[in-house]
Parts: sequence; structure tokens; C-alpha cells
Amino acid sequence: MQKSPCVYLVGAGPGDPGLITLRGHRHLQAADVVVYDHRVHARLLRLARHDAEKIDVGPAAPRALDQDAISLLLVEKAREGKVVVRLKWGDPFVFDSGGKEAIFLHEQRIPFEVVPGIPLAIAGSAYAGVPITYPEAGDAVILIRGNEAETDAPAKVDWSHVAGISGTLVCYAGARQILAIARALMSHGKPPLEAA
Amino acid sequence: MQKSPCVYLVGAGPGDPGLITLRGHRHLQAADVVVYDHRVHARLLRLARHDAEKIDVGPAAPRALDQDAISLLLVEKAREGKVVVRLKWGDPFVFDSGGKEAIFLHEQRIPFEVVPGIPLAIAGSAYAGVPITYPEAGDAVILIRGNEAETDAPAKVDWSHVAGISGTLVCYAGARQILAIARALMSHGKPPLEAA
Repeated sequence: MQKSPCVYLVGAGPGDPGLITLRGHRHLQAADVVVYDHRVHARLLRLARHDAEKIDVGPAAPRALDQDAISLLLVEKAREGKVVVRLKWGDPFVFDSGGKEAIFLHEQRIPFEVVPGIPLAIAGSAYAGVPITYPEAGDAVILIRGNEAETDAPAKVDWSHVAGISGTLVCYAGARQILAIARALMSHGKPPLEAA
Repeated sequence: MQKSPCVYLVGAGPGDPGLITLRGHRHLQAADVVVYDHRVHARLLRLARHDAEKIDVGPAAPRALDQDAISLLLVEKAREGKVVVRLKWGDPFVFDSGGKEAIFLHEQRIPFEVVPGIPLAIAGSAYAGVPITYPEAGDAVILIRGNEAETDAPAKVDWSHVAGISGTLVCYAGARQILAIARALMSHGKPPLEAA
């Protein structure tokens, strides 16, 4: 009997292989095919079956695929009757392409399931010893998409509004953009110590 | 030889017991004492050792403790040489008291480790089939602390600035506050369809 084709969009978490979920781990162990982000920790791939097909789709992989090609690959493998895990860095839906893949799978009538992962912003600050929220330290957390380009310019958000919200700000940005982000926040009235 | 006392602040995730991390699971299995939030899934507690002491600290537990008493309990158990897991709903640092417990443990020189969990906001939307971010749908995610009181009033954030940021807004609020939140956003210029 052929297995029901199914795709699992699984968050691998931020790096530490111990931060994948039990559910993600279980699907990874059962997968026939693992389609993974290049940045996923190599130790996670060793949790997959020895005979599972493992496909690095980048970015920065020798065989990097564009987003449409990745979505199509998931559909093709599922139509072959394979159980497919799409293993993604962080969480599949936080500043990632999981939404596009989910909608394409839905349109192609491929059953799929999303398994959330620990977002980079949450674990990064926790591992650095910084609580991302603290009582009496504001009532909001703002996550801002990174500008992946090698540029000094910060992301295109309205910094005047960002500066006006009391809470924690996490920018998924390159280190080169820190100065411009701090300047943008201070120019909109954020006190220098808070903007640090 | 006495074991090194150690406290693990572990995120249990949002409900589904399969969403705890491998690392959190491992610490839970090894714990002598599990100090848990009342809302943590009962099936997770069965992953702990049969002979582990399991303490429900609320809120809404028969033996609910206030925050200072919880922090003190962690320190006392650690000083007895026990391995303690503090199992928390969601992530220990996202709108939770993990920051206070971490600082108290640090002040009392108790070695501790934080194990992030899947935040409610991330998994709630994923399980509802809604990608929390989507390409071309804004570059920010804003999480807002809930107002736990049974009230119609929304949280005390500056809604004019929240309304001005393009992206996804997640309010940890009671259902009774939805109308007031939508009205606050629309009064500051958010288009009705986006504010839904």
C-alpha cells in the first residue's frame, strides 16, 4: 500500500540541534526526503533515516534553488508518494518562505502540516542571557525583517512609529546596519540608552 | 557524590506536548523536581520521572504561589542538591516571569539554564493556518502583552504607533478586548480590512 503523500514544514530552530521540537524530530526520523535550508545544523540531518534523500536547497548551497523551484520540488516528491520534510531555519512562518510553500501545497492539493520552530529572535536573546520581555519594561515586542543585502541601510519600516512603542525591538539585520538603525530610532526621539 | 544543583527554565510551548524541544524534554526526564505552570499540558508531566516531585504553582492552582514564592522555591530546591525544571507555558521570556526568576537565581548564585519554547503567538497562528509573516505583507511582527483582567479595555500601548507599522499584530488579550483593539487601530487610520 502506498503511503499517503504528505509534506511537513518543520522549523529546525535557531541552530542548537536540541531546540527542534519532539514533533519535528519524529517527522524528520520518518521522512523519505528531507529538503533543507543550508543553514540548518548538520547534526539535525543525522537524525533523519540513513537512506532518506537529503537535498540542500540553499541559499548559498552548490545546488541552491529559487523559491518556485523549492515549492515545485516539494510537490513532485509528495506526488511520488514520499513523506517529505521541509526543514527550515528558525520557524517556517517568521520572516521565511513557509507561507509561500504552504499556499502552493494547498493549491496543488498536497496534504501538509506545519510544525513551528523556535524563532531566531527568541532563542538568540535567551542564549545571550537577555530576557526578551521583562515586567515593567514595556508591553510589546517588535520583530523587524532583516535587510539581507550587504548594505548600511536599515529595513524599510517606519522608524518614527517603531521608536514610539515601549518594549523590545529585535531586528533581523546585518551587523553593518546597527548604527543606521540606532540613528533612525534616536532621530525619532528614542533615548540613546534605550536605543542601544 | 551530590549532583550539582541546577535549575532549568524550560518553555513547554503553547499546548501540544509535541512542541516541547528535545533539550527541554531531556531536562524534564532527568529532573528531581518539576515546578510547573498550571496551564502546561498534563501529558508533558508524564514525561518526567515517576518519582520526581511535581509542584503546580498556578495561576489558578489550588496551591498557587506568588512570583516571589516561586523564585524562592526554585532556589530552595536547588540548594537541596536537586535538579529542578521550571516548566513554563510558551517561552520563559515572552510575556512571562522567566526574567524575574533568572535574575533571582543569578543573585542567589544558583547555576541555571534557559531552554526556549515555542511562543504562543507563533504556534497559535500556524495551527490556525495563518502564516505570521508573508512576503510583501509588511516587514514587522508586533506582539502585545495581554490584559489578563476580565475587562473590555485593551492593553496600554500607544495604538497610534502600532497602527502606523505595516505587518502582523498579535495581541495576547482576552476575546472581550478584540472590539476595543480594532476600534483603537481604526481610529488611528488602520484600514478596516487590515485591522480585522
